[in-house]
Amino acid sequence: MKVLVHIDDAEQWRAALSARLPEAEVITSNASLEARREAEYLAVWKPSARLLGEPTRLKGIVNLGAGVDALLSNPALPRDVPIVKLRDAGMAELIGDYVRYGILHFQRDFDRYRRQQAREEWREHAVIDKVDWPVGVLGLGAIGAKVAAMVAADGFPVHGWSRSPKSLDGVTCHHGDEGLDEVLDRVMTLVLLLPDTRATRHIIDANALARLPAGASLINPGRGTLVDEAALLEALAQGSDQSGETEGRLRGALLDAFPEEPLPAASPLWSHPRVWVTPHMAGPTPLGAALDQVAEALRALEAGEPLDTVDPEAGY
Amino acid sequence: MKVLVHIDDAEQWRAALSARLPEAEVITSNASLEARREAEYLAVWKPSARLLGEPTRLKGIVNLGAGVDALLSNPALPRDVPIVKLRDAGMAELIGDYVRYGILHFQRDFDRYRRQQAREEWREHAVIDKVDWPVGVLGLGAIGAKVAAMVAADGFPVHGWSRSPKSLDGVTCHHGDEGLDEVLDRVMTLVLLLPDTRATRHIIDANALARLPAGASLINPGRGTLVDEAALLEALAQGSDQSGETEGRLRGALLDAFPEEPLPAASPLWSHPRVWVTPHMAGPTPLGAALDQVAEALRALEAGEPLDTVDPEAGY
Repeated sequence: MKVLVHIDDAEQWRAALSARLPEAEVITSNASLEARREAEYLAVWKPSARLLGEPTRLKGIVNLGAGVDALLSNPALPRDVPIVKLRDAGMAELIGDYVRYGILHFQRDFDRYRRQQAREEWREHAVIDKVDWPVGVLGLGAIGAKVAAMVAADGFPVHGWSRSPKSLDGVTCHHGDEGLDEVLDRVMTLVLLLPDTRATRHIIDANALARLPAGASLINPGRGTLVDEAALLEALAQGSDQSGETEGRLRGALLDAFPEEPLPAASPLWSHPRVWVTPHMAGPTPLGAALDQVAEALRALEAGEPLDTVDPEAGY
Repeated sequence: MKVLVHIDDAEQWRAALSARLPEAEVITSNASLEARREAEYLAVWKPSARLLGEPTRLKGIVNLGAGVDALLSNPALPRDVPIVKLRDAGMAELIGDYVRYGILHFQRDFDRYRRQQAREEWREHAVIDKVDWPVGVLGLGAIGAKVAAMVAADGFPVHGWSRSPKSLDGVTCHHGDEGLDEVLDRVMTLVLLLPDTRATRHIIDANALARLPAGASLINPGRGTLVDEAALLEALAQGSDQSGETEGRLRGALLDAFPEEPLPAASPLWSHPRVWVTPHMAGPTPLGAALDQVAEALRALEAGEPLDTVDPEAGY
């Protein structure tokens, strides 16, 4: 089996994958065009259209991450080639810790204390108890469900939302358009863990932000396209003065995903005093577990065994 | 029973304590000198020597917090009057969440990302897995033990230390001088939850800081006197350039307690780029639970029932 790996640090992946799949010939995109054309399987993260279009007898694609939107929107994606994506491989817990940090950041006023430190202000804020700090989790796939469970275990009331009905222990589940409003109306911190689909694009728009209680906060470790950035800036600004020290209706945001990455230098988010920008680091795939999955998927594809593949129509 | 309450917001405490102890006459330090002299019990937080010396027939003192150092060093503290301190009343979990936030702050590089944001730098750091991020907890009293258990439950290896041997589930326990070195030698984040006693003053000095692995971080939600501030600044500075962007041997510190509070305007900690200052907010006493304890302690003192009292010699 001939496998082409394309991702940052591809050589590291190539070597580790070769060790796991001795029966395979594993190359990277640095190989010759002739070798690339002969690749039967691609193990890729955001390949260019050119790279994706080169193989002449492609039998399967393994997407080296949980988000398949970049791959599915690639014009060179061949039809009828099965796509397997990495399942949660420790990623959900990493995202869960990112979310935990973000919730405590707001619930325990670390955002305020950091701004106070800049002006040498010693002032304590009364703690709002966790039980009075409902958290909303939009998206209850493998990652959202795990994150919701982690936050609930920490003692916060959690309201989960998904398009279709779900049931999760310890999480109040809502669904559909009405359910979304129910969640938005009551949560102090809103966490976005939805996939990027036509239905979720700008799901957090001016209307959604206006429903949140005054002083609510936003955490987006999901996809940049979920949030209407202009509406976000507007919600952060309402009620704030020029120094940025008065808080907006939306108190602050911790953002890990953006429509364009890296976040462009011109983005007002970089310098907004109540926006914390992280460089899409919430859910890196732990390498060892990911490699095991890639090897397993390639073997199953080659053997023609049944596999859980991506549905391009649904977008995940 | 006549009780004098002295603390910030004393009127709120007075009213709530009256409701819980209908048999008591509860006053605050705003009462007349005559009334203050008749107080049989004090429920106080950091009383002045004058206030502490006024009652003429004092039968007991309830310390409205876990730290008794301010009270024990008060020159007007009468001998042979039993002192009861508040036990953990939800405080340990609040401190635990402060510590969790601080550990994630360093383990997940939020400190670096925040500095990167200031210079609009989009750069991801590889995550060091939790299992490779040992955390040290100095002090295994009620609060330290609970915090150590919370951190261990989150998946970090925890090394606890106390003066005398202890045993805690899920925590590697060390004790004595040698045990302290064992902890310091290996932890990526060191958490201070010791009482302020003669033995713990400046326990974190230049020698202790030099033992920590390069790139370790410090969290102090305990007592300000535990840390030699000059040595701390020195450890933070070693290896750092003027911009503060190169990190010192000690990567950073999250500090909630200081020898003088509020932290004086002249302190270099306020503006240090790798020090996060919070205004002694890690472990506020949840009012309701605290009041229940105060009422219970006063009833037991009045009834002459056996009670767990403070040992002034030991300092806790």
